[in-house]
Amino acid sequence: MKLTILGCYAATPRTITNPTSQVLEIRNRMFLIDCGEGTQVQLRKNKIKFSKINHIFISHLHGDHFYGLVGLISTFMLLNRQTDLHIYGPKGIKEIILLQLRFSNSFTGYNLYFHELTATESEIIYEDEKVIVKTIPLKHRIYTNGFLFQEKIGDRKLNVQAVEKYEIETCYYQNIKNGKDITLDNGTIIPNETLTFDPIPPKSYAFCSDTMYDETIIPIIQNADILYHETTFLETEADKAEKTMHSTAKEAAQIATKANIKQLILGHYSTRYSNIELFKDEAQTIFPNVLLADDGKSFEFD
Amino acid sequence: MKLTILGCYAATPRTITNPTSQVLEIRNRMFLIDCGEGTQVQLRKNKIKFSKINHIFISHLHGDHFYGLVGLISTFMLLNRQTDLHIYGPKGIKEIILLQLRFSNSFTGYNLYFHELTATESEIIYEDEKVIVKTIPLKHRIYTNGFLFQEKIGDRKLNVQAVEKYEIETCYYQNIKNGKDITLDNGTIIPNETLTFDPIPPKSYAFCSDTMYDETIIPIIQNADILYHETTFLETEADKAEKTMHSTAKEAAQIATKANIKQLILGHYSTRYSNIELFKDEAQTIFPNVLLADDGKSFEFD
Repeated sequence: MKLTILGCYAATPRTITNPTSQVLEIRNRMFLIDCGEGTQVQLRKNKIKFSKINHIFISHLHGDHFYGLVGLISTFMLLNRQTDLHIYGPKGIKEIILLQLRFSNSFTGYNLYFHELTATESEIIYEDEKVIVKTIPLKHRIYTNGFLFQEKIGDRKLNVQAVEKYEIETCYYQNIKNGKDITLDNGTIIPNETLTFDPIPPKSYAFCSDTMYDETIIPIIQNADILYHETTFLETEADKAEKTMHSTAKEAAQIATKANIKQLILGHYSTRYSNIELFKDEAQTIFPNVLLADDGKSFEFD
Repeated sequence: MKLTILGCYAATPRTITNPTSQVLEIRNRMFLIDCGEGTQVQLRKNKIKFSKINHIFISHLHGDHFYGLVGLISTFMLLNRQTDLHIYGPKGIKEIILLQLRFSNSFTGYNLYFHELTATESEIIYEDEKVIVKTIPLKHRIYTNGFLFQEKIGDRKLNVQAVEKYEIETCYYQNIKNGKDITLDNGTIIPNETLTFDPIPPKSYAFCSDTMYDETIIPIIQNADILYHETTFLETEADKAEKTMHSTAKEAAQIATKANIKQLILGHYSTRYSNIELFKDEAQTIFPNVLLADDGKSFEFD
């Protein structure tokens, strides 16, 4: 699992910082999460192939989280994309995008599917054989969702030495990886744990931006490996955090502690702070494993 | 008069090039012309004060000319702008912007005036005591206007030595600058041309992007000092220019010649060309005074 931060600053794009967007690579899928203005240039800068993005998740309809979407959709069109593109986001996103395409008399040569979200309880919005994505309903000034990306438990890993020792034919390998025991020609039963190792433990990534401190998300993100949680402000500006329905670094750390998260990543910093290390310092008074997101930074989780 | 190019490349924003946007400073007014994605960052890079922009002219509703507008309007809001903002652009622009503000539950603290354009003949869309702006109806795939910015003829310039010689009181100066003769106490009439110099000749700037070759614009832009004319393609790709309703460098030069333009500026290059000097070379086979626009480049016209 690899996370690349394209932008992680709040509010307006600036010469040196970008609004929210990130790419999650998980089990060979590539998911784009939020798409602030300038995201397509950030994708180019970070050498992420446009063609690999087939699913885009938009948390909410504030500009710093989606104003780059219509441009990216248009660029896909100009690049003659043929593959389906799926957009998951709040109701209204379809109307906004299609209105702009209509006035520009543009038609995508690829299928554009909108999955508009309205639920206020967590729901599964994407699932395939390897990955599942659920919403994390957040509390912000407008309808907002975070997203929980979970790997599914994979096949058990074949113990190659063991299967060769018992001269098991390859046609049985998938059954073995699925957890089945094997009966040899002489009637001996070889238990599955002799022939396999445990599968790679599935990982999960929770993306929560933007939100005020909200303990109702804890059961949804409980035990996640990685939590990206917004922290627009420090505790010194807790009044501003409350007024604008954002979180402080301390509050993000409290959520991470209570949800038994392994690794917390902070982001969505207000541009009023010139030193983002202060966010880490504040969070670490509560929770030890803190990383700071920054534009262009990648995190690999093995 | 000063022109600053924020972006002058066609189609998609890239790491090193930006879609169309430029700032025209004329008689102490600052007009923003087109507003592709990333324009607000380009304004910052070029150190242009956001607060000086009160009028934005949008040629047409293709993304590379206006996808940065909603973000700029939102940033003005976040910066607590109070001054009126006027947007001139094709019908539909108001619906697109207001829909996005509505879904983000945002309200500008300043007055936002939309001047939606539908006319197919040139019309005056802005006028004050020093400047007049007219549309230049263009031929493109969707409804498109260029804009002609004209300085008005200013007051005659006072000949300070002359008015002091005749001991004329300062309360008569404005009358003199308005062209009036002066009668001295002894009855002598001093003709105005003795007391003044000719006013600074008014300048005009014609912005034409995007358009196919179209001679119907010639009477509108006739004798303009500066013409910015798109040239998406070179003659080697004339078929593509025709198909997409764009112009070649040669065609831009032909328009400049026939309209008796003093200075031609080329821009809106297709990103397929790595060497934009080729556009200048091609245009100069027809018209000598050619400058190449490029992102971040400024032109001063005295």
